[in-house]
Amino acid sequence: MLGACSRPEMVVEITLQPVRRYGVDAAILFSDIVLPLRAAGVGLDIVPGVGPVVDAPVRDAAAVAAVPRLEPDDVGFVAESVRGLVGELGGTPLIGFAGAPFTLASYLIEGGPSRHHDRTRALMRSEPALWHELLSRLAEISATFLEVQIRAGARAVQLFDSWVGALSAADYREYVMPHSAAVFERVAAHDVPRVHFGVGTGELLPLLGEAGASVVGVDWRVPLDEAAGRVGGGYALQGNLDPAVLLAPWAVIEREARRVLDEAVDLPGHVFNLGHGVLPETDPDKLTRLVELVHAATGRA
Amino acid sequence: MLGACSRPEMVVEITLQPVRRYGVDAAILFSDIVLPLRAAGVGLDIVPGVGPVVDAPVRDAAAVAAVPRLEPDDVGFVAESVRGLVGELGGTPLIGFAGAPFTLASYLIEGGPSRHHDRTRALMRSEPALWHELLSRLAEISATFLEVQIRAGARAVQLFDSWVGALSAADYREYVMPHSAAVFERVAAHDVPRVHFGVGTGELLPLLGEAGASVVGVDWRVPLDEAAGRVGGGYALQGNLDPAVLLAPWAVIEREARRVLDEAVDLPGHVFNLGHGVLPETDPDKLTRLVELVHAATGRA
Repeated sequence: MLGACSRPEMVVEITLQPVRRYGVDAAILFSDIVLPLRAAGVGLDIVPGVGPVVDAPVRDAAAVAAVPRLEPDDVGFVAESVRGLVGELGGTPLIGFAGAPFTLASYLIEGGPSRHHDRTRALMRSEPALWHELLSRLAEISATFLEVQIRAGARAVQLFDSWVGALSAADYREYVMPHSAAVFERVAAHDVPRVHFGVGTGELLPLLGEAGASVVGVDWRVPLDEAAGRVGGGYALQGNLDPAVLLAPWAVIEREARRVLDEAVDLPGHVFNLGHGVLPETDPDKLTRLVELVHAATGRA
Repeated sequence: MLGACSRPEMVVEITLQPVRRYGVDAAILFSDIVLPLRAAGVGLDIVPGVGPVVDAPVRDAAAVAAVPRLEPDDVGFVAESVRGLVGELGGTPLIGFAGAPFTLASYLIEGGPSRHHDRTRALMRSEPALWHELLSRLAEISATFLEVQIRAGARAVQLFDSWVGALSAADYREYVMPHSAAVFERVAAHDVPRVHFGVGTGELLPLLGEAGASVVGVDWRVPLDEAAGRVGGGYALQGNLDPAVLLAPWAVIEREARRVLDEAVDLPGHVFNLGHGVLPETDPDKLTRLVELVHAATGRA
């Protein structure tokens, strides 16, 4: 996986596939959330069937001090991928992406994927100074990684804080938001749309906007009209068809997609999307029909 | 694990330990959420480091039709454990427990633990008739299992819908609530307090009450005063100290425990509890101090 993400010709091909096949309105860079960590020099790999596994979990001051900086040259291959894609994509915009500091920290602290990120929450509360040092280092990495993509031609960025839904709003505000805000602050200077997304973040939706996003991603648990009330004015919403719906018969998919569109009908700048990633078992033909349905319903056919 | 749960003398000993050591105000039966499934005849085991693993995942009509009924005699050893405990506990009440239909279904459909229960949500949407048949069978099992415990002397019950936070409120209402309500309806005839809990259920709190509970459990993501507004009048709340807090120094534990108590100060019948299970790394002495703190703060010292 990380090998494929490091070869520009492969990244270009994989990134273009959904654009060619489904006719979606934007491409998102094929990459992985932990790629910039590895590019910076953190020992880790993606183990099939497991996910990212870190050689030496980061749980003390020495390990935090050893988290390296990411220099733009460390991810020169990503810049090359982005430039290649921009050439191929024509008018279709490319969305760059990076993992947010909390989610990157959760992999480093737990040593790999985990269900509730208990050690992460424990370190956060037990050693707040160490926590903030780790997250500020990770914010630097995320921001540098996004800037490389923007400078190479990405026309929007998405910050994935996949697992931050493990926190209460008060803890998010105290322990995480300053660091995600630092990432967005550096990115905002480039004047591109900034999408912010995490799974199970119903309690955090207002803060995901306040952290400096221009677009807040919503998973399938909160209806978009309800989410709009929580996020407040001045933001666009992205989402939020349940990816499991795509495993159902077409009539169910159509009904649920129209429900999402109906809930978003009064929301300016709604970006139709799934509420999380496409499941591997999904029939590609259903994705084609879904894109057609959304285009027809929104006058983009 | 399932072996230990099946030996009354061991269940009595393990259930009593926290009462003796920490002086908590109630005991909760040592058992496992999948125990009644296995007792009914479903092939499964608890694999160390993994969790419950089902021999043949339940994904079609034949498999659903083969889900057996639970007869009270199948869990005669549980009744014996409860009777033994009631004798030992004196005035301290015993809380019985069972897994809720959705969470039991998720183990049967996925074949084991999973992060987002994607196959479960997919089956729910793709084959609603089959889904409702499966959940009504599981509701029968849960209700029978709780009734066995009440008849043997349990003075309250808790229905754990651990993973139902994967659903939106609309999906919960359509696909799950009728079945959890059926469990509570059978239990309500016995006139014992009925606790209803799931992790990450901020969106579902009103419906967890409406399903027929008298006490709604809240995890650490939603402050209790906020949760009370969502659940509405007529229910007590249980919760919600983040279990990861117990891995922090005592000053942090004390501050967070007092915050929970402060948020609950105006709530009638608040049951102080963790927002999820005790983490294995927890220092038992901190649990002792926490119980003392709560007792002192609430005038039960």
